Amino acid sequence: MIINKDSFLDAYLQDRRKIVEEALHWYLPTENNTPVEIYKAIHYSVFAGGKRIRPILCLAATEASGGDMAQAMPVACALELIHTYSLIHDDLPSMDNDDFRRGKPTCHKVFGENIAILAGDALLTEAFIVLSRAEKLKFSAEKRLAVIQEISQAAGIAGMVGGQTLDVLSEKSRPDQEVLYEIHRRKTGALIKAAVRSGAIMSNARENKIQALADYGLNIGMAFQIADDILNVEGNRELMGKETGSDTALGKVTYPSLMGMDYAKAELQKHIDAAIASLTIFDKRALPLRLIARYIMERKS
Amino acid sequence: MIINKDSFLDAYLQDRRKIVEEALHWYLPTENNTPVEIYKAIHYSVFAGGKRIRPILCLAATEASGGDMAQAMPVACALELIHTYSLIHDDLPSMDNDDFRRGKPTCHKVFGENIAILAGDALLTEAFIVLSRAEKLKFSAEKRLAVIQEISQAAGIAGMVGGQTLDVLSEKSRPDQEVLYEIHRRKTGALIKAAVRSGAIMSNARENKIQALADYGLNIGMAFQIADDILNVEGNRELMGKETGSDTALGKVTYPSLMGMDYAKAELQKHIDAAIASLTIFDKRALPLRLIARYIMERKS
Repeated sequence: MIINKDSFLDAYLQDRRKIVEEALHWYLPTENNTPVEIYKAIHYSVFAGGKRIRPILCLAATEASGGDMAQAMPVACALELIHTYSLIHDDLPSMDNDDFRRGKPTCHKVFGENIAILAGDALLTEAFIVLSRAEKLKFSAEKRLAVIQEISQAAGIAGMVGGQTLDVLSEKSRPDQEVLYEIHRRKTGALIKAAVRSGAIMSNARENKIQALADYGLNIGMAFQIADDILNVEGNRELMGKETGSDTALGKVTYPSLMGMDYAKAELQKHIDAAIASLTIFDKRALPLRLIARYIMERKS
Repeated sequence: MIINKDSFLDAYLQDRRKIVEEALHWYLPTENNTPVEIYKAIHYSVFAGGKRIRPILCLAATEASGGDMAQAMPVACALELIHTYSLIHDDLPSMDNDDFRRGKPTCHKVFGENIAILAGDALLTEAFIVLSRAEKLKFSAEKRLAVIQEISQAAGIAGMVGGQTLDVLSEKSRPDQEVLYEIHRRKTGALIKAAVRSGAIMSNARENKIQALADYGLNIGMAFQIADDILNVEGNRELMGKETGSDTALGKVTYPSLMGMDYAKAELQKHIDAAIASLTIFDKRALPLRLIARYIMERKS
């Protein structure tokens, strides 16, 4: 029997997305004690139709490492809260000044700039509440601290905030290939790498497996960003939920604009191949991770 | 011999401020690997002449509880990073729109709004890196997780971010006394309470002492804010490093404007008395905490 890998992955992603979204409801601040505007802004942005790729990767890495998915859930959700905060702040007028995301008005367009900034601040903070509070987890306090360290470093200056800073500054001075790589690595690669490494750490994986997942994460993070750049040129507006061609119109430096579309596609392939190659020491429980790598290359939105 | 308590406290605060500032240099991101603009913005704001009251209180609570000040230092510094982030974001044009703080142009006036938002995000994240990374600390991983939980909750919706949200929203609808109390409790009280509770937790203090310090922290936090409101009316512009009377000019609701100056001063006294009373179960090692409470009431800037 030949397994249809595409339909397996579709069902897998849909199932995981559903589980993660149910858990997100559980880990978000309750309506009680939360000022109503910020409660609405947080829910609006967290449930705006995200692909939940970071939490899904964290859970998949946990299972690939022989860990318990249920135990990893708070960490998976914390990653999505951090990702959502970064989107809210990136969209702000003084940053990328985006009016739409995933076909919906951005947080500051709906709730105002001040509430959007605060909603982002709240989500980032909430992530660390979730990471530090989950008392019933079976993995040790040491492992939990290691995960907090992993995620905070990926979200910080060496990772996401640093990448966004380089990105904002690159609008003034055209970045070269090296800077562009650094932006993608920090802005997207670091948190995805932390997602899969965290899964491995929680599963008591050995160092060689943690390192292999770090390689996998960094490569699919890079691939994800290059695929985004390619889709911005060649993608279908309807499927994307936003205008295509915006990078070109803004004169934004991307892999396709800087090195050409052929080069960008070759780089994408290279990162996907490297990601899949890094998983050789894992058994069949890493199948979802392998398929997700391929999905990133072939996705249409 | 009569000890001059004022000069003792002055020397104590000056000494502690110096120790904290040296440690802050140690715990801030290094120049290497940090985009230069955000490095400058972070240093500008962290070293803009703050009183370091939160870290000093954390260290004082540690010593009052019989703990080791050196061990508490990363936590003390993390509190100051979170406090600094909140000031940077509060000053933004869409928030309080302040051009000056402590006599110097605010972060966004010097570095631009985008870098100011990112510097705030970076400082908040950096705090959790510092809290999770300090491997050499003697206190257990469980205690460190408890401290991260304490501080993240105080910084989040139930605390600082929630308080700032209520404050921003109160500009549209005049808050009553209850809402004003809630703003102060969350915006200022929560993090100060977390500062002293963390000191006690790290020192393996018993629950009754942790609770006593929580009462102390909440009361001096409230007192600190009421004193600020009073100084905004009666303070000396030179000593304050900013314009006085700005609250009145902006029609901002404060303790003096809502309930009158006499009531505000009586409330201030009440909170200071309650703070000092909560320390009765502590021995003489709590002297700095007692003196700091009085200092908050009597401060001129």
